[in-house]
Formats: sequence, structure tokens, C-alpha cells
Amino acid sequence: MADAHAPERPLANGQTRIDFQTEPSRYRHWKLTIDGDIATLLLDVDEKGALFDGYELKLNSYDLGVDIELADAIERLRFEHPQVRAVVLRSGKPRVFCAGANIRMLAGASHAHKVNFCKFTNETRNGIEDLSANSGLKTICAINGTAAGGGYELALAADHIMLVDDGSSAVSLPELPLLAVLPGTGGLTRVSDKRKVRRDHADFFCTTEEGVKGKRALDWRLVDEVVPGSKFEDAVAARARDFAAASRRDGGAQGIRLTQLTRSFREHSVEYETLSVEFDRSGRIATVVLRGPAEMPPASADAMVAQGAAFWPLKLARELDDAILNIRLNEFDVAAIVFKSFGDPGRVMAYEHFLDAHTDHWLVREIRHFWKRVLKRVDLTSRSLVTLIEPGSCFAGTLAELAFASDRSYMFLGRREGDNKPPAAIALADANFGPYPMANGLTRLGSRFIADAADLEQAKAERHRMLDAERAQKLGLVTFALDDIDWDDEVRVFLEERASFSPDALTGLEANLRFAGPETMESKIFARLTAWQNWIFQRPNSVGEEGALKRYGTGQQPVFDTRRV
Amino acid sequence: MADAHAPERPLANGQTRIDFQTEPSRYRHWKLTIDGDIATLLLDVDEKGALFDGYELKLNSYDLGVDIELADAIERLRFEHPQVRAVVLRSGKPRVFCAGANIRMLAGASHAHKVNFCKFTNETRNGIEDLSANSGLKTICAINGTAAGGGYELALAADHIMLVDDGSSAVSLPELPLLAVLPGTGGLTRVSDKRKVRRDHADFFCTTEEGVKGKRALDWRLVDEVVPGSKFEDAVAARARDFAAASRRDGGAQGIRLTQLTRSFREHSVEYETLSVEFDRSGRIATVVLRGPAEMPPASADAMVAQGAAFWPLKLARELDDAILNIRLNEFDVAAIVFKSFGDPGRVMAYEHFLDAHTDHWLVREIRHFWKRVLKRVDLTSRSLVTLIEPGSCFAGTLAELAFASDRSYMFLGRREGDNKPPAAIALADANFGPYPMANGLTRLGSRFIADAADLEQAKAERHRMLDAERAQKLGLVTFALDDIDWDDEVRVFLEERASFSPDALTGLEANLRFAGPETMESKIFARLTAWQNWIFQRPNSVGEEGALKRYGTGQQPVFDTRRV
Repeated sequence: MADAHAPERPLANGQTRIDFQTEPSRYRHWKLTIDGDIATLLLDVDEKGALFDGYELKLNSYDLGVDIELADAIERLRFEHPQVRAVVLRSGKPRVFCAGANIRMLAGASHAHKVNFCKFTNETRNGIEDLSANSGLKTICAINGTAAGGGYELALAADHIMLVDDGSSAVSLPELPLLAVLPGTGGLTRVSDKRKVRRDHADFFCTTEEGVKGKRALDWRLVDEVVPGSKFEDAVAARARDFAAASRRDGGAQGIRLTQLTRSFREHSVEYETLSVEFDRSGRIATVVLRGPAEMPPASADAMVAQGAAFWPLKLARELDDAILNIRLNEFDVAAIVFKSFGDPGRVMAYEHFLDAHTDHWLVREIRHFWKRVLKRVDLTSRSLVTLIEPGSCFAGTLAELAFASDRSYMFLGRREGDNKPPAAIALADANFGPYPMANGLTRLGSRFIADAADLEQAKAERHRMLDAERAQKLGLVTFALDDIDWDDEVRVFLEERASFSPDALTGLEANLRFAGPETMESKIFARLTAWQNWIFQRPNSVGEEGALKRYGTGQQPVFDTRRV
Repeated sequence: MADAHAPERPLANGQTRIDFQTEPSRYRHWKLTIDGDIATLLLDVDEKGALFDGYELKLNSYDLGVDIELADAIERLRFEHPQVRAVVLRSGKPRVFCAGANIRMLAGASHAHKVNFCKFTNETRNGIEDLSANSGLKTICAINGTAAGGGYELALAADHIMLVDDGSSAVSLPELPLLAVLPGTGGLTRVSDKRKVRRDHADFFCTTEEGVKGKRALDWRLVDEVVPGSKFEDAVAARARDFAAASRRDGGAQGIRLTQLTRSFREHSVEYETLSVEFDRSGRIATVVLRGPAEMPPASADAMVAQGAAFWPLKLARELDDAILNIRLNEFDVAAIVFKSFGDPGRVMAYEHFLDAHTDHWLVREIRHFWKRVLKRVDLTSRSLVTLIEPGSCFAGTLAELAFASDRSYMFLGRREGDNKPPAAIALADANFGPYPMANGLTRLGSRFIADAADLEQAKAERHRMLDAERAQKLGLVTFALDDIDWDDEVRVFLEERASFSPDALTGLEANLRFAGPETMESKIFARLTAWQNWIFQRPNSVGEEGALKRYGTGQQPVFDTRRV
């Protein structure tokens, strides 16, 4: 396999890690403008603004850096611009909407980066759909030119795709004929499961380099509207007004600012305000220690809005998201993420009650949806996930979801000798029974207790109580409860064992065991589609020296192993 | 990648291809005995009876040859022994039930063989579950010893798992800790989705080499019953009687014999009685030409039983199944399978009417279920599937499913110049709207018309009519209708193009586009689980020279790339 031990190529501008934090004033590729209740997201990629050395972002092609800006803009539409009801995605370049993921970037990226790049771009597109489905902000994609590969996949995330009918503008998924890979950012799944394109039409479309345009694109359900060039601008504006008028978004008049996170990257840790990440490099463990709130919740919804990004649940969610992404893309050697917490579980529950009391407030809704997405990101992180519930911890309500997201949890039974911290307790809240579905559509507890609905009901009846280790284990909420005598050894042996296993096999195991029960379009993207793409990303026909990805643009034809597998 | 161009290892005994036909008198590994309404399938693997040279089948481990016998036995229980209501799966060896797929076999097999071996064993296990769900023949797995890996996965296909409680007998899925691969024959999916084992218990179980035994195995839902050794035989016998008594199987008193297929393997073709397969080796195409029935259907159900395996729908299904398996496992270089047919569509429809008229007859039910499984096998065959509907063809009813299973279909419009064959027509029957669900639980037409139920209704309204190319295209039943002027060129260009694409990318594309809509446990096995396993089967941590699969049993520890992907 070509790149098993290949180092990551160098980041541009001497950077040493990929940063997921940005803000509109620093965007190099996207421009976010707001006009009343309509926003425009203009893609105008800076060719020289690539994340890594070694390639240019021609023809509005993208790399992870471009998508980090898009993801940031989407969050700002949620939190900073609650009055926006429709957003138009379009290109700032003539005759090209977007050429998709940059091929040179892909050809030179390590397998681990490719896979995690695709995961992130998928999450961003799911976030756009979540924005429409749950926040009422509708997305129109206006394509005046070619939308190829990832460019069309971006369009597929929109509610409404408009294509200019000029005899040349087309949508296409040319990955297979051009590069011998799949459209990997949800394209195949959205074509078949969202757009519901007939499978033989989809087969034709995905094997035709030049794609489909005009009436056929409409007839085959690939786009929602084709419009002559002369009428395109007016039609896009009219459609944006229509969607904004039909939107049921009822955000406040005034948003909150997503201020910059305060972080400090050190050699073996990252310090945030509400959590820290400690790296045990030889043990290949990252320990995320979440800190409970220092204060009780604000007195009113207005006071919450006044706190803005400093409101503890929101700040913690943003910092956790950043911490997880940092591990995913910058710390490939971490085998397991251990979640710990420290704080007063009663105070955490006070925040749950506050959020429940203001559940119809736009900001509370957005915070809960944000937590939902962060927790989904945790579920989809291909590292072993472990929660250690120790004396002094505060895994209550939303924080307890981390234990249920984990592959295993260990809970400390009683007190530690010579330690006066209160015995570990966990507490369930309404938040554990609804607002945070996994990609499979079930809550984490619903997935956990899929065998017997009575177990779920039993847990539900225990809401708002502090549950000690014995009770938590009886209820099936933790994997093992261990006392002071066994704790250190059992946990150490488990983590050492985990680090000794093949990382790939663990990735596959966890990708299966974490998602019992039904599948949704979203889970199909991350399993069926992604797993096949990951396989193809290992095959010589794409990534080998004679493979299509390596030979693209060289003038040499790829050489394929012709055996079907 | 280690084995990209590795040739298959030599077959044992100088054989030149893997043969899927066998019969009980030739079994080397299984023994099928019948006692009233209870059958026993005894696994007693002949160590020297491996399919390939280079390994021995120790400890009741298996290779494809062992599973071909099992699949054969299951079919015979359906057709030859309709009076059997329960079957006990057990081992003929002391202290070991089954050690799973043979590791030496896996370590030396090509990627293409490994993947297709797993696909076949999965289909066999799905067939066991289909036998229970749809034919009422219940399966009890009696484990007196260790059931490891594929051994436990075989047990997972049963309705009831009994484990002897002797302090050492255990069930386990040690693939990850031992071999750095997944349990690949449905194990993870059945643990989470069929047995509904809690995910953290499943995580523990699947990472613990020695597995789980006794009470914990029961508490964790891994088995249904643990029984002390002294009472095991009685308990198994009693349980078999219970299940037989509760079975609703109402097969006839007398089965039919599944006689040997009459086949002739030639250099560039295989000739069966109801079909032929022609290989265009340079074009990498296999053309399957199905022949319509020579006679009208028999006059009565009794006459059908008298025909037995010669009854045209059954014979065709068996021959098609064999032909598909032959291509899958012996003809890796075939890029596309082209289905053609020749015969009187009216006579094919007469058979549909006959089957519909006797839909409650046990043999008709079994034949329809057999066709269901053969068609699922077609869906899951990783070759491009194309149906060419030409003048003189007979794609009616069940045969039309092949067109709907295909990635594309082309239908000839009008007559060929200088040819007096009747213009192509297709016809729909009740069989196209229910009895042949795909792995996703939908019919092929239901999947095809997933965008709009009205399209499905419109097609349904056209049942029992001969539909010409124009009408068929209007109804959305075929991809393209082409006349004599375009036909040859369009079809040729398409097939050449298909053969020019990366086989892997096509495999991934088709695995996504063929299965729109819902997922089931079965489809999760073939997509989520299998796709991840295929990926792992390409990773150096398992198949590399220092990988776990290669180093197993050498005394050397595997060396892993520690990066998580």
C-alpha cells in the first residue's frame, strides 16, 4: 500500500497543525454577505490559499481549509444571524461553480488525511441540511457553470438546485471515470436517497465524465430548475425570496457573537476555558477533561443572550468540537480518547433545567442542535472512546451522553482512599431521551437499550436523580463499576490493550458496533459510502503509482488491475 | 498492496475451478441425517479436504469448500425433506464446535477470493435465516466446546444457541485481537442487530480473545441457553422437539430430488440445459443467455412435483445460481455480465400464471424463495450488470427481474433488418411486485421507483400485457430504447467503456447505487460490515508482510502502523 507510512505533506506557511477556528474577516475563499433575511455564500477560492504546500486551488476546487471556512460560516448563520431565512450558495468565478476536491491535494494526501478530510466535509454538508430541517434556514444552490464532483455534492446538500441552461453548464460526478474513486462526500447516497434519481440514470450520470445538463438534468431529478442565462439572476433572487418567505425560522432579531476561542496549545496538552486535552504520547491516549460550570445558570433567557458565547453549555460545546477535530486531523497516533469530567453534577443539572425551561428560545434550540452535531462528531471519530466516571466528576445530562457515546465506560465505586472527593454519580435529564439523536436516528440510550424498551423506560424513570455506581451499573448505564482496589489496574490494562490492537481493525469494529438498528441517509453516507470509498482509497487502481489518482494530469493513462473483487 | 497481482493459489487435487455442485454422498465435512421431523447437520471437517493446496482444516475450521456443502445441505432440506421442521447444527469433534474460517487459507488467499468467500458464506447464513423466517424450519445450534470466529458466526444464524456450561466451552469473536481483521461473516451485525447485545458488552466480547462463557454469555444475550454437560444431550433433543412442534412448516410428505445439473464447461462457454454463458475474454464480458421454456407448464401441481428438478422455473434458477457463482469465484476478470434471453414471453408468462395459481403449494413457495435468493445473489455480484432486451427475447415476469437488477438495460426498438424475430417485448407479472425483495427489503421495482409511488402503480396496472420498447421506456422500465441504427454502436461503446473503468471503483459505485432506500440487517451485513472488512483486508496491519494475518502462528508479533484513519 503506497502511503502506509507516508508522512503528511507540509502545511502551507510553516503551520504545524490544522486550525479549525476562523472568522469571516479571515476567510480567503468564501464571502458571507447578508441582505435582510437572505444571505449569500460566495465561493471564490484563492488559488494560493491552499492548506498544504504543493498544489494550487484552481477552478474553485477545495481542500480542508476551504471547507473549514464554510463550516464556520454555517455556524455563524445559526448564531450570529438568526434573522436570515434563506441562503444562496454560488460561485464568484465565471463559468465554474466548483470543481470539487482538489485532485493534486488528494493525490498527495495520506490515507488518514483523505479519510478525515472527507468525514469533515460530509459533516459540513449534513450541517447544511440540519440547518434547513431543524432551523428553517433554506439553502438554494445557484449553478452558473460546471459543478463537478464535490462541487455538485455541495449542491446536493441544498434544498433547491438551480442550473443555468446555456448549453454548457452541467452537473457531474466524474470521479469514477476520471480518478477511479467514488464521489466521496455523500454524492452517491444523496443522488439515490435524497434526490431519488432512478438507479440506471444514476449509473449513467456517475460514469459520464461530462455530466448532464439542461432538460435531462431536470428530468432525471439531478437539479430542481433549469433557467436560461438571461433570466438566471432574476430567478435566483425570486427563488431566494420565495424560500425566505416560506421559512418558518423564528430566530431573534439579534444574534450573539461567536467570539474567538481562548486556547493554548502546549507540547502535551491543549488548554481551553472549559476543558483540557492531555496527550500521553507513549500510551497513545488523549484525555479530555471537561470542567463543570463555575456559576449557576443565568436568571433569564435575556441574561443567557447577554452571556452569548460565554454561556457555559455553548462554550463547552464549541471547545469540545475544536478539541475533537484537533485530535482527528492533527493527532493521528492517538488510539483512544478518554473522557473525564470535574465539577458539580448538581450545577450541570441546573443548566439542563434552564435549557429545558427555555426550550423554545431560539438560542437554546441552536445550542441543543449544536450539541447534537458535536456528539455526532464524537460518535464518528475513529478512535476508541472511553469514559472514566470518577469521584468528583459531573457526567450529568448532556455530559452523560459522552459516556453513552463511548465504546466502554468505567465507573468508580465508592471513594478513593485518602481522597475526600464525593463518590462518582451520574444523572439523567430530558436531554438524554430526545434532542441528541445519533446518525442512525435513535438516541444513544435508545441504541444502547435496543434489546428491551423496558430498560429504556426504567432509565427514563430515574431522571433527575443522582445515580451511584451500583445503581448506574444495575440500570445498564455503565459497562463496569470498579472499586478502589481494581480501578487503576483494570483501566490501565484496558487502555494498554486497546493501544496494542490494530488501529484499522478497531476503526472497523467501532464503526459497526456503535450503530445498531436502523440506518438513515446520514448513516448510509458514513458507513456504506464512506467504507467503500476508504477501500477504494487503498486500492492500487486509484492510489498506486500507476493508479488514476496519481496519473491524473500527467498525460499517461492509468494501469488497472482488471480483477473484480 | 501485497496481493494486487498475486495469482490464486492452486486448487487441491489439480482442479481448475471451484465447483459449487455437490450432494450428500460426496460431502467430506458435513453429515446430514434425518430423524422424523428433525434433521442434524454434523460438522466434522476432514483436515485433508481443503479446497486449495497449502493448508489443513484443523479444529473444524472451514474454507469455501466446507461452506459449499453446507449451502447444498440447506437447499436439500428445503426441497428434498419438506417434512423436516427443525435442524440441529452441531460438531462431530470433541471440545470444539468450529474454529471459524481457516487462518492459513485466509492468509494465503487473494483479496478477490477472500472477499467473495465471505460473500458466499454470508449468503449461506442468510439462507439459513430465510429457511426459518419463510419456510418455518427452525435451527438450533448446539455448542459443546469452543465456537470461535466464524464458528460463532454460524451459530448466530441459528434461531436458538445452546452452550454447554463446563467451565471451558465459550463463544468468541477473536478476529480483532488475534488477526487484526473483523469477524466478516455477519458477526458484528448479528451481535448488535439480531442478538441486540449492548454495545459496550459487544465491544468487550469482540476484543477478548478467549471469548465469553457460562452465565455471562447468557446474561449478555450471546447465547440463549447454557446447560450443564451432563444434561446437554437431553436438553438439545428436547429443544429440537419443542421447535419442531412449534414450527409452522407445512411441506408435503414427499420432497423432490435435486438431481445433478447437466453442465458442460468449454474454453469460452458453459452450457447448461436452460442457459448458456459465453465469455468474451478480451472484452471481459460474460453473456448469460437464458432460454425460455420449451413446453407449456404442467397441468397440475402434482404434475409439477412429478417433474421435480426438471420443472423449468426451478431448473433455470439452479442453473443461473451456479452460473453466477462460477463467474464470481472462477472468473475474476469479467467486468460485466450481460443478460440476454431467447424464447416465447407468452410461455414464460404461462409459468407465472401457473405459479400464481399454486402459490400456497409448498414446492411453489420454495421455488419462489429460491428465485428470491438467486436474484439477491445477482444484486450482490460485484460485476456490472446489463440486460439487453432484443427481438426474440422473453424477459417476462421473474425473468424481467434481471433487467431491474441490472445497472442498465437496453431495449431494441422495432425489428432488426433482415431478421424476422418478433420485436422485443417485456411483460410484468405479480412476481415483480412482491415475492422477490432485495436485501434492502424493497422489490426491485419499488427501489427503482422510490421517487414516486405513482410510477410503481402505473407499472403495476400494466401487468400481464406485452410491452414494446416505446411503452417500456415510457413506463421507466428500461434505461434506453434504441433502434437498429444505433443499437450495435451504443451497446458496444457502453461495454467497452465499462471494461475500461477501474473495477474497484465500479464495485463501490454499484454497491451504493443498487441499494437505494432502507437498510436491513442483511443489507447492513453486505454494506457496512463487508465494506469495512474489505478495507481492512487491504491494510498492511492485517495483510502486510508484518501484518497479523501473515504473522499468525509464526511466533512473531505483528507490527502495526499505529495511525488511526
